[in-house]
Amino acid sequence: MYKLYDFLPSGNCYKIRLLLKQLGIAYERVDVDILSGQSRTDAFLQLNPNGRVPVLAHNGNYLPESNAILWYLAMNTAFLPTDAFAQAQVLQWLFFEQYSHEPNIATARYWISILKAKDHYAEPLKGKMEAGYAALDVMERHLQAKCFFVADQYSIADMALYAYTHVAEEGEFDLSAYRHIKAWFGRVQAQANHIGIQCA
Amino acid sequence: MYKLYDFLPSGNCYKIRLLLKQLGIAYERVDVDILSGQSRTDAFLQLNPNGRVPVLAHNGNYLPESNAILWYLAMNTAFLPTDAFAQAQVLQWLFFEQYSHEPNIATARYWISILKAKDHYAEPLKGKMEAGYAALDVMERHLQAKCFFVADQYSIADMALYAYTHVAEEGEFDLSAYRHIKAWFGRVQAQANHIGIQCA
Repeated sequence: MYKLYDFLPSGNCYKIRLLLKQLGIAYERVDVDILSGQSRTDAFLQLNPNGRVPVLAHNGNYLPESNAILWYLAMNTAFLPTDAFAQAQVLQWLFFEQYSHEPNIATARYWISILKAKDHYAEPLKGKMEAGYAALDVMERHLQAKCFFVADQYSIADMALYAYTHVAEEGEFDLSAYRHIKAWFGRVQAQANHIGIQCA
Repeated sequence: MYKLYDFLPSGNCYKIRLLLKQLGIAYERVDVDILSGQSRTDAFLQLNPNGRVPVLAHNGNYLPESNAILWYLAMNTAFLPTDAFAQAQVLQWLFFEQYSHEPNIATARYWISILKAKDHYAEPLKGKMEAGYAALDVMERHLQAKCFFVADQYSIADMALYAYTHVAEEGEFDLSAYRHIKAWFGRVQAQANHIGIQCA
Protein backbone atom coordinates (compact mmCIF):
# COMPACT_ATOMS: atom_id res chain seq x y z
CA MET A 1 0.00 0.00 0.00
CA TYR A 2 1.17 3.53 -0.74
CA LYS A 3 2.07 5.73 2.20
CA LEU A 4 1.93 9.52 1.87
CA TYR A 5 3.93 11.78 4.18
CA ASP A 6 1.55 14.67 4.22
CA PHE A 7 0.69 18.10 5.66
CA LEU A 8 -2.99 18.93 5.15
CA PRO A 9 -2.71 22.72 4.47
CA SER A 10 0.02 22.18 1.83
CA GLY A 11 -1.06 22.55 -1.78
CA ASN A 12 1.85 20.35 -2.86
CA CYS A 13 0.48 17.55 -0.67
CA TYR A 14 -3.11 18.23 -1.76
CA LYS A 15 -2.13 17.55 -5.40
CA ILE A 16 -1.24 14.00 -4.45
CA ARG A 17 -4.34 13.39 -2.32
CA LEU A 18 -6.51 14.66 -5.17
CA LEU A 19 -4.89 12.37 -7.74
CA LEU A 20 -4.97 9.34 -5.41
CA LYS A 21 -8.68 9.99 -4.78
CA GLN A 22 -9.43 10.32 -8.49
CA LEU A 23 -7.46 7.17 -9.25
CA GLY A 24 -9.34 5.30 -6.50
CA ILE A 25 -6.09 4.28 -4.83
CA ALA A 26 -6.17 3.56 -1.09
CA TYR A 27 -3.20 4.82 0.90
CA GLU A 28 -1.95 5.44 4.41
CA ARG A 29 -1.55 9.08 5.38
CA VAL A 30 1.23 10.12 7.78
CA ASP A 31 0.89 13.62 9.20
CA VAL A 32 4.12 15.63 9.13
CA ASP A 33 3.73 18.94 10.97
CA ILE A 34 6.18 21.13 9.08
CA LEU A 35 5.43 24.06 11.43
CA SER A 36 6.96 22.18 14.38
CA GLY A 37 9.98 20.99 12.39
CA GLN A 38 8.86 17.43 11.70
CA SER A 39 10.11 17.61 8.08
CA ARG A 40 13.65 18.45 9.28
CA THR A 41 14.20 15.64 11.81
CA ASP A 42 17.01 13.14 11.20
CA ALA A 43 14.41 10.43 10.64
CA PHE A 44 12.55 12.46 8.01
CA LEU A 45 15.76 13.54 6.28
CA GLN A 46 16.46 9.84 5.72
CA LEU A 47 13.32 9.76 3.56
CA ASN A 48 13.93 13.09 1.85
CA PRO A 49 17.32 14.75 2.36
CA ASN A 50 15.75 17.96 1.04
CA GLY A 51 13.42 18.07 4.08
CA ARG A 52 10.10 18.69 2.35
CA VAL A 53 6.67 17.11 2.05
CA PRO A 54 5.10 15.34 0.27
CA VAL A 55 7.00 12.07 0.09
CA LEU A 56 5.40 8.95 -1.38
CA ALA A 57 6.52 5.59 -0.01
CA HIS A 58 5.94 2.44 -2.04
CA ASN A 59 7.63 -0.95 -1.87
CA GLY A 60 10.37 0.41 0.39
CA ASN A 61 11.19 3.28 -1.95
CA TYR A 62 10.69 6.96 -1.16
CA LEU A 63 9.83 9.54 -3.78
CA PRO A 64 9.90 13.29 -2.95
CA GLU A 65 8.84 16.25 -5.12
CA SER A 66 5.10 16.66 -5.59
CA ASN A 67 5.15 16.86 -9.38
CA ALA A 68 7.42 13.81 -9.75
CA ILE A 69 4.92 11.91 -7.58
CA LEU A 70 2.03 13.10 -9.76
CA TRP A 71 3.85 11.85 -12.84
CA TYR A 72 4.66 8.47 -11.27
CA LEU A 73 1.07 7.84 -10.20
CA ALA A 74 -0.50 9.16 -13.42
CA MET A 75 1.58 7.16 -15.91
CA ASN A 76 -0.67 4.97 -18.05
CA THR A 77 -3.85 6.51 -16.62
CA ALA A 78 -6.43 8.93 -18.03
CA PHE A 79 -4.71 11.79 -16.20
CA LEU A 80 -1.65 11.85 -18.47
CA PRO A 81 -1.99 12.18 -22.27
CA THR A 82 -0.35 9.40 -24.28
CA ASP A 83 1.19 11.52 -27.06
CA ALA A 84 4.90 12.24 -26.47
CA PHE A 85 4.69 15.95 -27.24
CA ALA A 86 1.59 16.35 -25.06
CA GLN A 87 3.45 14.59 -22.23
CA ALA A 88 6.29 17.08 -22.65
CA GLN A 89 3.75 19.91 -22.47
CA VAL A 90 2.41 18.46 -19.22
CA LEU A 91 5.97 18.61 -17.89
CA GLN A 92 6.31 22.16 -19.24
CA TRP A 93 3.40 23.25 -17.03
CA LEU A 94 4.61 21.21 -14.05
CA PHE A 95 7.97 23.00 -14.24
CA PHE A 96 6.22 26.34 -14.76
CA GLU A 97 4.23 25.62 -11.61
CA GLN A 98 7.29 24.85 -9.49
CA TYR A 99 9.48 27.66 -10.87
CA SER A 100 7.23 30.62 -11.72
CA HIS A 101 4.03 29.98 -9.73
CA GLU A 102 4.47 28.09 -6.45
CA PRO A 103 7.49 30.02 -5.10
CA ASN A 104 5.42 33.20 -5.36
CA ILE A 105 1.75 32.31 -4.89
CA ALA A 106 2.22 29.52 -2.35
CA THR A 107 4.87 31.46 -0.43
CA ALA A 108 2.62 34.54 -0.11
CA ARG A 109 -0.17 32.28 1.21
CA TYR A 110 2.25 30.58 3.60
CA TRP A 111 3.55 33.85 5.03
CA ILE A 112 0.13 35.54 5.27
CA SER A 113 -2.37 32.78 6.11
CA ILE A 114 -0.33 29.97 7.65
CA LEU A 115 2.48 31.77 9.49
CA LYS A 116 0.24 34.87 9.94
CA ALA A 117 3.36 37.01 9.54
CA LYS A 118 2.39 39.42 6.77
CA ASP A 119 4.10 42.42 8.40
CA HIS A 120 7.34 40.54 8.98
CA TYR A 121 7.53 39.60 5.28
CA ALA A 122 6.25 42.94 3.91
CA GLU A 123 9.39 43.66 1.88
CA PRO A 124 9.90 40.26 0.13
CA LEU A 125 6.12 40.00 -0.34
CA LYS A 126 6.27 42.82 -2.90
CA GLY A 127 8.39 40.72 -5.25
CA LYS A 128 6.28 37.61 -4.61
CA MET A 129 3.08 39.49 -5.50
CA GLU A 130 4.52 40.91 -8.72
CA ALA A 131 5.88 37.55 -9.88
CA GLY A 132 2.73 35.75 -8.74
CA TYR A 133 0.51 38.02 -10.83
CA ALA A 134 2.83 37.46 -13.80
CA ALA A 135 2.28 33.70 -13.41
CA LEU A 136 -1.50 34.19 -13.16
CA ASP A 137 -1.36 36.31 -16.34
CA VAL A 138 0.39 33.48 -18.20
CA MET A 139 -2.31 31.04 -17.05
CA GLU A 140 -5.17 33.42 -17.92
CA ARG A 141 -3.79 33.97 -21.41
CA HIS A 142 -3.36 30.23 -21.99
CA LEU A 143 -6.90 29.45 -20.77
CA GLN A 144 -8.49 32.05 -23.09
CA ALA A 145 -8.63 29.43 -25.82
CA LYS A 146 -8.38 26.16 -23.88
CA CYS A 147 -10.55 24.17 -21.49
CA PHE A 148 -7.57 22.50 -19.80
CA PHE A 149 -3.82 23.10 -19.88
CA VAL A 150 -2.80 20.31 -22.25
CA ALA A 151 -4.45 18.32 -25.02
CA ASP A 152 -8.00 19.43 -24.13
CA GLN A 153 -8.15 16.94 -21.31
CA TYR A 154 -8.04 17.19 -17.52
CA SER A 155 -4.57 16.03 -16.51
CA ILE A 156 -1.99 16.30 -13.73
CA ALA A 157 -1.01 19.68 -15.25
CA ASP A 158 -4.41 21.01 -14.16
CA MET A 159 -4.17 19.37 -10.74
CA ALA A 160 -0.72 20.85 -10.10
CA LEU A 161 -1.77 24.37 -11.11
CA TYR A 162 -5.16 24.22 -9.42
CA ALA A 163 -3.64 23.35 -6.03
CA TYR A 164 -2.28 26.79 -5.16
CA THR A 165 -4.22 28.91 -7.66
CA HIS A 166 -7.63 28.19 -6.17
CA VAL A 167 -6.40 29.36 -2.74
CA ALA A 168 -4.34 32.29 -4.08
CA GLU A 169 -6.70 34.68 -2.29
CA GLU A 170 -5.29 33.32 0.98
CA GLY A 171 -2.07 34.98 -0.19
CA GLU A 172 -4.09 38.15 -0.93
CA PHE A 173 -4.03 37.75 -4.70
CA ASP A 174 -7.15 39.31 -6.21
CA LEU A 175 -8.56 36.87 -8.75
CA SER A 176 -11.62 38.94 -9.69
CA ALA A 177 -10.23 39.92 -13.11
CA TYR A 178 -9.12 36.37 -14.01
CA ARG A 179 -12.34 35.11 -15.54
CA HIS A 180 -10.79 32.36 -17.63
CA ILE A 181 -8.99 30.98 -14.57
CA LYS A 182 -12.22 31.08 -12.59
CA ALA A 183 -14.13 29.26 -15.34
CA TRP A 184 -11.36 26.62 -15.33
CA PHE A 185 -11.77 26.26 -11.54
CA GLY A 186 -15.34 25.21 -12.26
CA ARG A 187 -14.25 22.62 -14.82
CA VAL A 188 -11.66 21.19 -12.40
CA GLN A 189 -14.16 21.08 -9.54
CA ALA A 190 -16.68 19.29 -11.77
CA GLN A 191 -14.38 16.29 -12.29
CA ALA A 192 -15.48 13.02 -10.72
CA ASN A 193 -14.21 12.49 -7.17
CA HIS A 194 -12.94 16.04 -6.75
CA ILE A 195 -11.97 16.86 -3.16
CA GLY A 196 -11.13 20.12 -1.36
CA ILE A 197 -7.66 21.13 -0.24
CA GLN A 198 -7.87 20.03 3.39
CA CYS A 199 -9.58 16.72 2.56
CA ALA A 200 -8.05 13.27 2.45
CA MET B 1 15.06 20.18 -38.02
CA TYR B 2 14.97 21.28 -34.38
CA LYS B 3 15.43 24.96 -33.67
CA LEU B 4 16.71 26.10 -30.28
CA TYR B 5 16.04 29.61 -28.98
CA ASP B 6 19.19 30.00 -26.98
CA PHE B 7 21.37 32.30 -24.84
CA LEU B 8 24.93 31.01 -24.63
CA PRO B 9 25.76 31.98 -21.00
CA SER B 10 22.53 30.36 -19.70
CA GLY B 11 22.93 27.04 -17.91
CA ASN B 12 19.32 26.20 -18.73
CA CYS B 13 20.12 26.55 -22.44
CA TYR B 14 23.44 24.71 -22.07
CA LYS B 15 21.61 21.63 -20.78
CA ILE B 16 19.82 21.35 -24.11
CA ARG B 17 22.92 21.98 -26.24
CA LEU B 18 24.77 19.30 -24.25
CA LEU B 19 22.02 16.71 -24.73
CA LEU B 20 21.58 17.52 -28.43
CA LYS B 21 25.35 17.12 -28.91
CA GLN B 22 25.42 13.81 -27.06
CA LEU B 23 22.43 12.56 -29.03
CA GLY B 24 24.12 13.62 -32.29
CA ILE B 25 21.10 15.70 -33.30
CA ALA B 26 21.69 18.62 -35.66
CA TYR B 27 19.76 21.79 -34.90
CA GLU B 28 19.51 25.46 -35.75
CA ARG B 29 20.49 27.84 -32.98
CA VAL B 30 18.71 31.20 -32.63
CA ASP B 31 20.45 33.69 -30.33
CA VAL B 32 18.09 35.45 -27.91
CA ASP B 33 19.88 38.19 -25.98
CA ILE B 34 17.95 38.18 -22.73
CA LEU B 35 20.04 41.12 -21.45
CA SER B 36 18.60 43.44 -24.11
CA GLY B 37 15.02 42.22 -23.61
CA GLN B 38 14.78 39.87 -26.60
CA SER B 39 12.96 37.23 -24.53
CA ARG B 40 10.20 39.72 -23.66
CA THR B 41 9.28 41.01 -27.13
CA ASP B 42 5.77 40.39 -28.45
CA ALA B 43 7.20 38.03 -31.06
CA PHE B 44 9.05 35.94 -28.46
CA LEU B 45 6.07 35.90 -26.08
CA GLN B 46 4.13 34.21 -28.87
CA LEU B 47 6.59 31.30 -28.57
CA ASN B 48 6.74 31.31 -24.77
CA PRO B 49 4.24 33.49 -22.91
CA ASN B 50 6.46 33.09 -19.82
CA GLY B 51 9.26 35.01 -21.61
CA ARG B 52 12.19 32.70 -20.94
CA VAL B 53 14.79 30.71 -22.86
CA PRO B 54 15.33 27.99 -23.87
CA VAL B 55 12.49 27.17 -26.23
CA LEU B 56 12.68 24.18 -28.57
CA ALA B 57 10.83 24.43 -31.87
CA HIS B 58 9.94 21.27 -33.77
CA ASN B 59 7.31 20.66 -36.46
CA GLY B 60 5.68 24.01 -35.77
CA ASN B 61 5.36 23.35 -32.04
CA TYR B 62 7.17 25.30 -29.34
CA LEU B 63 8.28 23.75 -26.06
CA PRO B 64 9.58 25.95 -23.20
CA GLU B 65 11.07 24.87 -19.84
CA SER B 66 14.57 23.43 -20.01
CA ASN B 67 13.84 20.26 -18.08
CA ALA B 68 10.69 19.48 -20.09
CA ILE B 69 12.82 19.83 -23.22
CA LEU B 70 15.45 17.46 -21.77
CA TRP B 71 12.75 14.90 -21.07
CA TYR B 72 11.22 15.21 -24.54
CA LEU B 73 14.55 14.74 -26.29
CA ALA B 74 15.79 11.96 -23.99
CA MET B 75 12.74 9.69 -24.16
CA ASN B 76 13.70 6.28 -25.52
CA THR B 77 17.41 7.09 -25.47
CA ALA B 78 20.29 5.99 -23.24
CA PHE B 79 19.99 9.24 -21.28
CA LEU B 80 16.72 8.28 -19.56
CA PRO B 81 16.37 5.02 -17.59
CA THR B 82 13.56 2.73 -18.72
CA ASP B 83 12.27 1.64 -15.31
CA ALA B 84 9.18 3.62 -14.22
CA PHE B 85 10.42 4.34 -10.70
CA ALA B 86 13.85 5.37 -11.98
CA GLN B 87 12.14 7.73 -14.43
CA ALA B 88 10.21 9.24 -11.51
CA GLN B 89 13.51 9.67 -9.66
CA VAL B 90 14.94 11.50 -12.69
CA LEU B 91 11.96 13.85 -12.46
CA GLN B 92 12.52 14.16 -8.70
CA TRP B 93 16.00 15.56 -9.37
CA LEU B 94 14.81 17.74 -12.27
CA PHE B 95 12.23 19.34 -9.96
CA PHE B 96 14.82 19.63 -7.18
CA GLU B 97 17.05 21.44 -9.65
CA GLN B 98 14.41 23.95 -10.69
CA TYR B 99 13.00 24.56 -7.19
CA SER B 100 15.87 24.25 -4.70
CA HIS B 101 19.01 24.69 -6.81
CA GLU B 102 18.65 26.92 -9.87
CA PRO B 103 16.74 29.81 -8.22
CA ASN B 104 19.64 30.17 -5.77
CA ILE B 105 22.84 29.06 -7.49
CA ALA B 106 22.02 30.31 -10.99
CA THR B 107 20.57 33.55 -9.67
CA ALA B 108 23.71 34.33 -7.62
CA ARG B 109 25.82 33.69 -10.72
CA TYR B 110 23.52 35.88 -12.82
CA TRP B 111 23.65 38.80 -10.40
CA ILE B 112 27.40 38.55 -9.74
CA SER B 113 29.00 37.40 -13.01
CA ILE B 114 26.51 38.29 -15.74
CA LEU B 115 24.86 41.50 -14.49
CA LYS B 116 28.01 42.38 -12.44
CA ALA B 117 25.71 43.86 -9.80
CA LYS B 118 26.84 42.10 -6.62
CA ASP B 119 26.54 45.22 -4.45
CA HIS B 120 23.07 46.03 -5.70
CA TYR B 121 21.86 42.54 -4.76
CA ALA B 122 23.84 42.25 -1.50
CA GLU B 123 20.75 41.78 0.70
CA PRO B 124 18.84 39.12 -1.33
CA LEU B 125 22.16 37.38 -2.09
CA LYS B 126 22.41 36.32 1.57
CA GLY B 127 19.33 34.14 1.27
CA LYS B 128 20.41 32.82 -2.13
CA MET B 129 23.79 31.75 -0.74
CA GLU B 130 22.27 29.98 2.26
CA ALA B 131 19.69 28.12 0.17
CA GLY B 132 22.28 27.37 -2.54
CA TYR B 133 24.64 25.75 -0.07
CA ALA B 134 21.71 23.71 1.29
CA ALA B 135 21.10 22.40 -2.24
CA LEU B 136 24.80 21.60 -2.69
CA ASP B 137 24.71 19.72 0.64
CA VAL B 138 21.81 17.57 -0.59
CA MET B 139 23.76 16.75 -3.77
CA GLU B 140 27.00 16.01 -1.88
CA ARG B 141 25.21 13.64 0.48
CA HIS B 142 23.50 11.83 -2.40
CA LEU B 143 26.76 11.43 -4.34
CA GLN B 144 28.60 9.92 -1.35
CA ALA B 145 27.34 6.51 -2.38
CA LYS B 146 26.47 7.00 -6.04
CA CYS B 147 28.30 7.61 -9.31
CA PHE B 148 25.35 9.36 -10.94
CA PHE B 149 22.06 10.73 -9.62
CA VAL B 150 19.75 7.92 -10.74
CA ALA B 151 20.09 4.22 -11.51
CA ASP B 152 23.90 4.28 -11.67
CA GLN B 153 23.80 5.72 -15.16
CA TYR B 154 24.53 9.11 -16.67
CA SER B 155 21.15 10.66 -17.44
CA ILE B 156 19.40 13.98 -17.97
CA ALA B 157 19.28 14.31 -14.15
CA ASP B 158 23.08 14.66 -14.21
CA MET B 159 23.01 17.07 -17.15
CA ALA B 160 20.41 19.30 -15.47
CA LEU B 161 22.31 19.46 -12.18
CA TYR B 162 25.74 19.78 -13.76
CA ALA B 163 24.74 22.85 -15.78
CA TYR B 164 24.74 25.38 -12.94
CA THR B 165 26.72 23.42 -10.34
CA HIS B 166 29.94 23.34 -12.33
CA VAL B 167 29.86 27.14 -12.66
CA ALA B 168 28.64 27.79 -9.08
CA GLU B 169 31.95 29.50 -8.33
CA GLU B 170 30.85 32.26 -10.75
CA GLY B 171 28.17 32.91 -8.12
CA GLU B 172 30.91 32.87 -5.45
CA PHE B 173 29.98 29.48 -4.04
CA ASP B 174 33.07 27.78 -2.61
CA LEU B 175 33.07 24.16 -3.83
CA SER B 176 36.38 23.18 -2.22
CA ALA B 177 34.74 21.06 0.49
CA TYR B 178 32.40 19.25 -1.94
CA ARG B 179 34.66 16.40 -2.95
CA HIS B 180 31.91 14.03 -4.07
CA ILE B 181 30.41 16.71 -6.29
CA LYS B 182 33.85 17.42 -7.79
CA ALA B 183 34.47 13.74 -8.47
CA TRP B 184 31.07 13.61 -10.19
CA PHE B 185 32.09 16.62 -12.33
CA GLY B 186 34.92 14.42 -13.63
CA ARG B 187 32.56 11.56 -14.47
CA VAL B 188 30.19 13.93 -16.30
CA GLN B 189 33.04 15.56 -18.22
CA ALA B 190 34.36 12.12 -19.24
CA GLN B 191 31.16 11.25 -21.13
CA ALA B 192 31.43 10.99 -24.90
CA ASN B 193 30.80 14.25 -26.76
CA HIS B 194 30.85 16.39 -23.63
CA ILE B 195 30.93 20.13 -24.37
CA GLY B 196 31.57 23.22 -22.23
CA ILE B 197 28.89 25.71 -21.19
CA GLN B 198 29.47 28.33 -23.86
CA CYS B 199 29.82 25.78 -26.68
CA ALA B 200 27.27 24.86 -29.27
